Amino acid sequence: MKLPYLLLLLICTCIAPQSKAQPRALVLQTDFGLKDGAVSAMKGVAFGVSPELKIFDLTHEIPAYNIWEAAYRLQQTAAYWPAGTVFVSVIDPGVGSARKSVVAQTRSGHYFVTPDNGTLTLIAESMSISAVREIDEQVNRLPGSSRSYTFHGRDVYAYTGARLAAGVIPFDSVGPLLGTSVVRIPYQRATFRNGTVKGNIPILDVQYGNVWTNIDERTLAQLRPGFGDQLQVRILHHNRLVYEGTMPYAATFASVPEGRPLAYQNSLMNLSFALNMGSFAEKFRVSSGPEWTVEVRKK
Amino acid sequence: MKLPYLLLLLICTCIAPQSKAQPRALVLQTDFGLKDGAVSAMKGVAFGVSPELKIFDLTHEIPAYNIWEAAYRLQQTAAYWPAGTVFVSVIDPGVGSARKSVVAQTRSGHYFVTPDNGTLTLIAESMSISAVREIDEQVNRLPGSSRSYTFHGRDVYAYTGARLAAGVIPFDSVGPLLGTSVVRIPYQRATFRNGTVKGNIPILDVQYGNVWTNIDERTLAQLRPGFGDQLQVRILHHNRLVYEGTMPYAATFASVPEGRPLAYQNSLMNLSFALNMGSFAEKFRVSSGPEWTVEVRKK
Amino acid sequence: MKLPYLLLLLICTCIAPQSKAQPRALVLQTDFGLKDGAVSAMKGVAFGVSPELKIFDLTHEIPAYNIWEAAYRLQQTAAYWPAGTVFVSVIDPGVGSARKSVVAQTRSGHYFVTPDNGTLTLIAESMSISAVREIDEQVNRLPGSSRSYTFHGRDVYAYTGARLAAGVIPFDSVGPLLGTSVVRIPYQRATFRNGTVKGNIPILDVQYGNVWTNIDERTLAQLRPGFGDQLQVRILHHNRLVYEGTMPYAATFASVPEGRPLAYQNSLMNLSFALNMGSFAEKFRVSSGPEWTVEVRKK
Repeated sequence: MKLPYLLLLLICTCIAPQSKAQPRALVLQTDFGLKDGAVSAMKGVAFGVSPELKIFDLTHEIPAYNIWEAAYRLQQTAAYWPAGTVFVSVIDPGVGSARKSVVAQTRSGHYFVTPDNGTLTLIAESMSISAVREIDEQVNRLPGSSRSYTFHGRDVYAYTGARLAAGVIPFDSVGPLLGTSVVRIPYQRATFRNGTVKGNIPILDVQYGNVWTNIDERTLAQLRPGFGDQLQVRILHHNRLVYEGTMPYAATFASVPEGRPLAYQNSLMNLSFALNMGSFAEKFRVSSGPEWTVEVRKK
Repeated sequence: MKLPYLLLLLICTCIAPQSKAQPRALVLQTDFGLKDGAVSAMKGVAFGVSPELKIFDLTHEIPAYNIWEAAYRLQQTAAYWPAGTVFVSVIDPGVGSARKSVVAQTRSGHYFVTPDNGTLTLIAESMSISAVREIDEQVNRLPGSSRSYTFHGRDVYAYTGARLAAGVIPFDSVGPLLGTSVVRIPYQRATFRNGTVKGNIPILDVQYGNVWTNIDERTLAQLRPGFGDQLQVRILHHNRLVYEGTMPYAATFASVPEGRPLAYQNSLMNLSFALNMGSFAEKFRVSSGPEWTVEVRKK
Repeated sequence: MKLPYLLLLLICTCIAPQSKAQPRALVLQTDFGLKDGAVSAMKGVAFGVSPELKIFDLTHEIPAYNIWEAAYRLQQTAAYWPAGTVFVSVIDPGVGSARKSVVAQTRSGHYFVTPDNGTLTLIAESMSISAVREIDEQVNRLPGSSRSYTFHGRDVYAYTGARLAAGVIPFDSVGPLLGTSVVRIPYQRATFRNGTVKGNIPILDVQYGNVWTNIDERTLAQLRPGFGDQLQVRILHHNRLVYEGTMPYAATFASVPEGRPLAYQNSLMNLSFALNMGSFAEKFRVSSGPEWTVEVRKK
């Protein structure tokens, strides 16, 4: 009579700590900045969904309305977060317009809660999207917020992301399945032809003034550069030459004297240009965006 | 003989996970910025009180000594955090003077740890204050810090807020009860008379340059604006006209062409002015504070 | 037969919650800023090591390559975090050069994961270092990152710090023991001679423009200043006089009228200079660094 009791108890005791699912991170990205209370209100809503939620920031310093940079920052970081992580990205110049509010699931098991306005352009390439669902705002909206027209970031995106990350709702309950495609911003790809690698400058490494390209390892390999080889680099803006120079392909910044340029692979394994202890972008007035082109050949 | 044993065990097992109280958030606001170590030292003290504490930031970018903006940010966000949340706000130009260090409890169950210098002006209106206690620094002060005269934010406010949030002390142990009133900064209220709504500009939506007023939903309703109605807007600084223009009352930014002005309800449900994809405040040199007045009528 | 069972169960139930070690904080400092995804990628790696880790920021706004300021910020805050806290500091102008990647353990039980490039100068003085180990990158490196040359902050420092803080590895497993000494940046100490206290300005209190010196309580005591005493203060840059003036030694900012200078002990108990409600540094063009000297005597 007592043994089943004991067993039940033993089982309960053992299971209890394991039944708690692995906590998932909720990672927030916006163009709101940190000077006002918007991001904190989003976190308050998320904490209200579950106080056990692990809430982090990607960045809140995306330049206002810059969807391209939002897309880039997601691609830059998502793979370093474990499967199950829920990203909420709110760069939303079209708030209130016809753009859809979606949650995208990738084959890697990451989730992205965002307006479908191009923010997922690069994630769709680097992490294959397995399903996109439109957020059903009848269900997935902070209770009591339905008269608020303009703060979807807090009332819909943070709320839905938090419920997904906390396991309050499964992915299926987000809303109707839209398929696997998302809105994409067209941009220039990395290519190799006739001994020249071409690409564009998607982003600057703003803190240091380094110039990052989209020329990946595989494309660069076709040029067969070795450490110490001299590369001839041309940078064009709307096809107008902005910079032309020669620099070594180097494994480390310390390979060249202070103030000298080098080409290197950045932490994303893409070809980049820098000055050792200086700002390449500032010195040569180079910026980023789809209208910037890079051409590299061996000297 | 064994049954009571078993029952006791069963009860203990069941109660154990529940006896752990719902964790409360500790939310920090200062004018310290994030460039030095002050905020991190506050968090270290809080973490030392309890490593299980959930610590968040409201903002640390309040302009130095700007008590009014501190009051505004608390009002903007507090209601989005669940009851039990403990806010620590340290904007303290009078540190070392006669201002009192207090903890205010609201009827909603939120707590505010702050110098009583006007910081609670707007919270006192939006969330009714049920009790104010003065912090007894003989008890509620980081051990070993009594010779430090100037960092109350760390030694008194963060320490006391953390102990309250972690349940180390109940609200009663903060110190002597002062009543329910706090120091309040006088400011212009929203009014409706003779077909005109008046109000002031408490704050700008800094990231986007939108102009927020204190004209709430109920006051605005007396004007009976419908989406698409044209509103005549006048903005005055010290009674001098700074802006005069006509703009539609709109549900979304996308209702007007890029660069055009609109009036809308912000996420706090207050009347606001913006340029679609632009900065209204910058273009028309509008700022915020008690000396700014807004007049709106239907055209 | 059943009693041992019960006892075992009782013991298990009681031990279970206690067997969970006290969680340790992981505190990050870099010169990466918060505009891109670098810090978030570091946190993703740390969260991937253990989702239960408590991750905090010291600051990410250290001026690029400023090892001295990194050293100062660690000294300013470390003692306010409990023993066991793991700091990761990545200000690394020599990335890829011969500088060693180390973890230093202090007698107080704090850990510092950093390039050994002078970052530990001040911690070595204020918290005695008990052991330094070089990070063995064969073992302590994010799996799959070995081809990445330039982001040690994420792949080595954040990864190793997280594993140490989460208890995945003990300190012994970091790598080979190097001893107890670290690279130190030489700087001017606080002295008292012939009625004059000398020191330097290691840092400004940037948010308020207050000038902090390295003149500690004990050195200042030799001057025997009392509250209200007038002090004669000279500030020199490369031995050229930049400021000379008289100000009271005061317990609080409110002791002097608005806009007037005062000398006071800051939160680190060091002599400092300020304007009540103003910026001393800006008004008198005073900055910080080893080339700045301060001389103080009683009037």
